[in-house]
Amino acid sequence: MQATLEAIVAQNRALTARGKVATYIPELAMGDANAIGICLIDGAGNIHLAGDTDIRFTLQSVSKVFALMLALEDQGFAGVFDRIGMEPTGDAFNSIVKLETFASLRPLNPLINAGAIATTALIKGDSVAERFQRLYSYIETIAGSERIGFNERVYRSEKATGDRNRAIGYFLRDIEAITGDVEEVLDLYFRQCSIETDVLGLATLARRLALGPEADPPLTRDTLRVVRTFMYTCGMYDATGEFAVKVGIPAKSGVSGAIMAIAPNRQMGIGVIAPALDEKGNSKAGVQVLADLSRELGLSVF
Amino acid sequence: MQATLEAIVAQNRALTARGKVATYIPELAMGDANAIGICLIDGAGNIHLAGDTDIRFTLQSVSKVFALMLALEDQGFAGVFDRIGMEPTGDAFNSIVKLETFASLRPLNPLINAGAIATTALIKGDSVAERFQRLYSYIETIAGSERIGFNERVYRSEKATGDRNRAIGYFLRDIEAITGDVEEVLDLYFRQCSIETDVLGLATLARRLALGPEADPPLTRDTLRVVRTFMYTCGMYDATGEFAVKVGIPAKSGVSGAIMAIAPNRQMGIGVIAPALDEKGNSKAGVQVLADLSRELGLSVF
Amino acid sequence: MQATLEAIVAQNRALTARGKVATYIPELAMGDANAIGICLIDGAGNIHLAGDTDIRFTLQSVSKVFALMLALEDQGFAGVFDRIGMEPTGDAFNSIVKLETFASLRPLNPLINAGAIATTALIKGDSVAERFQRLYSYIETIAGSERIGFNERVYRSEKATGDRNRAIGYFLRDIEAITGDVEEVLDLYFRQCSIETDVLGLATLARRLALGPEADPPLTRDTLRVVRTFMYTCGMYDATGEFAVKVGIPAKSGVSGAIMAIAPNRQMGIGVIAPALDEKGNSKAGVQVLADLSRELGLSVF
Amino acid sequence: MQATLEAIVAQNRALTARGKVATYIPELAMGDANAIGICLIDGAGNIHLAGDTDIRFTLQSVSKVFALMLALEDQGFAGVFDRIGMEPTGDAFNSIVKLETFASLRPLNPLINAGAIATTALIKGDSVAERFQRLYSYIETIAGSERIGFNERVYRSEKATGDRNRAIGYFLRDIEAITGDVEEVLDLYFRQCSIETDVLGLATLARRLALGPEADPPLTRDTLRVVRTFMYTCGMYDATGEFAVKVGIPAKSGVSGAIMAIAPNRQMGIGVIAPALDEKGNSKAGVQVLADLSRELGLSVF
Repeated sequence: MQATLEAIVAQNRALTARGKVATYIPELAMGDANAIGICLIDGAGNIHLAGDTDIRFTLQSVSKVFALMLALEDQGFAGVFDRIGMEPTGDAFNSIVKLETFASLRPLNPLINAGAIATTALIKGDSVAERFQRLYSYIETIAGSERIGFNERVYRSEKATGDRNRAIGYFLRDIEAITGDVEEVLDLYFRQCSIETDVLGLATLARRLALGPEADPPLTRDTLRVVRTFMYTCGMYDATGEFAVKVGIPAKSGVSGAIMAIAPNRQMGIGVIAPALDEKGNSKAGVQVLADLSRELGLSVF
Repeated sequence: MQATLEAIVAQNRALTARGKVATYIPELAMGDANAIGICLIDGAGNIHLAGDTDIRFTLQSVSKVFALMLALEDQGFAGVFDRIGMEPTGDAFNSIVKLETFASLRPLNPLINAGAIATTALIKGDSVAERFQRLYSYIETIAGSERIGFNERVYRSEKATGDRNRAIGYFLRDIEAITGDVEEVLDLYFRQCSIETDVLGLATLARRLALGPEADPPLTRDTLRVVRTFMYTCGMYDATGEFAVKVGIPAKSGVSGAIMAIAPNRQMGIGVIAPALDEKGNSKAGVQVLADLSRELGLSVF
Repeated sequence: MQATLEAIVAQNRALTARGKVATYIPELAMGDANAIGICLIDGAGNIHLAGDTDIRFTLQSVSKVFALMLALEDQGFAGVFDRIGMEPTGDAFNSIVKLETFASLRPLNPLINAGAIATTALIKGDSVAERFQRLYSYIETIAGSERIGFNERVYRSEKATGDRNRAIGYFLRDIEAITGDVEEVLDLYFRQCSIETDVLGLATLARRLALGPEADPPLTRDTLRVVRTFMYTCGMYDATGEFAVKVGIPAKSGVSGAIMAIAPNRQMGIGVIAPALDEKGNSKAGVQVLADLSRELGLSVF
Repeated sequence: MQATLEAIVAQNRALTARGKVATYIPELAMGDANAIGICLIDGAGNIHLAGDTDIRFTLQSVSKVFALMLALEDQGFAGVFDRIGMEPTGDAFNSIVKLETFASLRPLNPLINAGAIATTALIKGDSVAERFQRLYSYIETIAGSERIGFNERVYRSEKATGDRNRAIGYFLRDIEAITGDVEEVLDLYFRQCSIETDVLGLATLARRLALGPEADPPLTRDTLRVVRTFMYTCGMYDATGEFAVKVGIPAKSGVSGAIMAIAPNRQMGIGVIAPALDEKGNSKAGVQVLADLSRELGLSVF
């Protein structure tokens, strides 16, 4: 396994030069464009590391998965999906068009920005601080506190430049998909995006999703099924369909260049980082690493 | 003329029952649904009044015309139209779709909400207060100070409920169509919508637009032509095309039920109020009053 | 006047090099990219010619104006506008999107392709041949038979390559905006696009529209007003708004590089040809010639 | 198993009254609105039948799966996906909008109408007759000739009323997603939609997809993975996301009320018929039967 991982990292490192580090948040632009690292935790719990495994990065959209898990545990299935749809979309991640043209005026699904902001708004707590603490602890409990941190500079950078998300937030309140203070919801959202980890942390998070509902912390069977399904149908922005065909496993990417992927049938969790992105916003080398790994190990769910 | 106006008001009063007063701003919902009033100032400057002419109402979108005039005088033609398009649209007034799908990512024209907010942002001044004072004085100079006021309750109502406009505002900054503090631009926009007048004030404003550039206050020939043209091609939300065919004169409506219309070839200015709106957001009876008047007096520009 | 025209043609001839002759129909690609010619018939009926005035060209979308006139005379106002809308659009001329997303499922207006095909379908006659003959005669009667012809090669070229229009045609029948044989309607449409004239013919056609309803052939006042209005609000594809602001007169362009424009207040008819098009599909030099002419002669309706 | 199936059919029969039989094709409108039947072939190959299992129905969109399989075998992966995208869409099955707004101008995926017509166009053969015979034989070989037929009346009905598909077809040729004779491609498409079977035939087809590539007829591993993936991400029109969450297995529905579903991990094939459709175009009772069955038997892939 170790040799396989190292070979795959080696053969894809050159791809990093063909992607671009995200620049819309100034802090992200400082990511190492040539870095590539992977961690895979197999069914027996063995940890395999290859490449640049010591760099830390923010979760960005990968955090949407955990916000959804917590919202489901807090509000139940109907509490979430009365407000947020379940349909994938071929549109870009930050599209407002779909919000407006869909008769139902609901965000399409919980993993695009609009739906993710509406999902985050469902996390319980008396204040932004408390709500964030609950989400942070939830993630920390799974991955271990030594693996999880918070990047204050990225958070400030997100907050200072998040006009598209602000537009989505006010639009959501206008269509009554969220209630309460929009800036508070956005603050919580920018915070969750700024939670920091490394590939070992990411793979540990992934492995929890690859295990059954009874693992630690326990999840309802429904929550687990729903989260894996959305990762499969909506996890890779508007390249999700292609990823499903070519890689075939549930995954969620973030603009930091992180991808968290799971092979549920093998109880395997995978974390990849390679900050240079393709034109859809997914890690250029990361996607190919997972495609190679899936082929090599036969991970595809179909 | 007086008899004509009174007959037209009388025959259209029943139409008010088939419209609905705008409710999206609580204060607007208090408008008198059955009211209908008109003021026409003819080429010789004679004032004709008919119907409910003593009610006061806010300008709402009618104010976009004067914000455009002031922005043109402040920034020149290129200063405005480098940022804002000139094309009419069959879409609803508060659509974000067009902002997003148009390759150019410019608001389509200065009389839909997105373009109007971007236009308002171009009015010069060191503070919101100063910028608003300049616009207010501009309008007051034309209409006379006794005709113009400010409705504080409507302003607060707009500001408290303006999430769609807030969404548009942040989107505009995201696409760099505006710069600076979004909330300040919106504050200025909500203020201009809350300027109050009556049909005599509205007709007086209209008449200035019906006169030549050299009238008082003097306008550049370009400003006058541009403003009249946008009223004709974009002034009545997504019923502008039908209004052009059926009425045939430059006009601008607001959700308060006001319509300001001009017959430039006759140097005639018209103000109408009838708060009950049709499904496009235009005064239900007001549109028909203008259609009847245009036919009766032969006002159509074509 | 002659000197003015010649000066304007001279100063804009260089612009032809910055446009491109339409190539989507092979026959059109043979147009002379550097040609530019104009004919203006003034209020007194005097004919002024300048530039390359002897070339012949097909009407293309200019024909939509006459199909609309005949449909209005054949079916009346309601007969046409129960099926076709009146709203301008910022979308490209051959868009299907608007057909589909508009709740009403009607073509937006009679001068975009979808609406024009639906308009053409309303021309009365027992066969395509008879219906075409009626339209052809209608145009010939106005312009004089020596000025009007039919370009068989362009017609065959249109018919062989008209898949986008065919898609629109079947879509129109699906939404019940047209009935009967789609290929016959398209055949009629391709034929009308292939009617040929020169700038004198075009200016003669324009002048009829600049005169009153009682001129020869007589038109209803309504037809005349409607046709002029749509030329003003929808005549120049998705650059109509800009043309209204910068030129300010009713006009209709075609992809052959023709523009037919009128100054109704001056009873003036203008025909321009310059086959090199801008990116919106309007004659690159032709638009500027009309802008210069309008400024020079004060033609703008506002 | 038999008792489970019968209980599920019984408890969902009442749902048929809350759906509507498709009427856009006259022949489909004759479907029995109250019928409901199911066939499940388990991992060991045992056949279980419950409900109205003797009615015959046309495959409609279910046929898209087999057209895709044959196109993949005929042209290879790149031969298909150079022309057709892989992304799911929340839009309705017969949308043209996405074709037009997507920069790439490719049909989004092979299971919506646009992509399916483009896929069908890739089936090899010298004539429509030969191409159809190849597809028909392919299906017949899997399901057995006694189970497969052709419904001539439905075919004629589809062909006579297929204007939306005709619009899509010509649009596809306009954007060069297909070449050749559009009417021939549509003829082939209408034919494939009119292939007839019963629930045993449908379950037999499904079971082939649930087995490995080496079963009979042999498929490439790639073809099998691709087909299952698209059924999972795009198989249930714009309710695919919800179906994935609630049922969790690859499936393809048709407007005849048929659903073909597979549980690959259990090597199980399922065919359901219940002609009354929900507002998304999927069998109203059929979807719920599969949801109940999936929960009862634990079929979800996640």
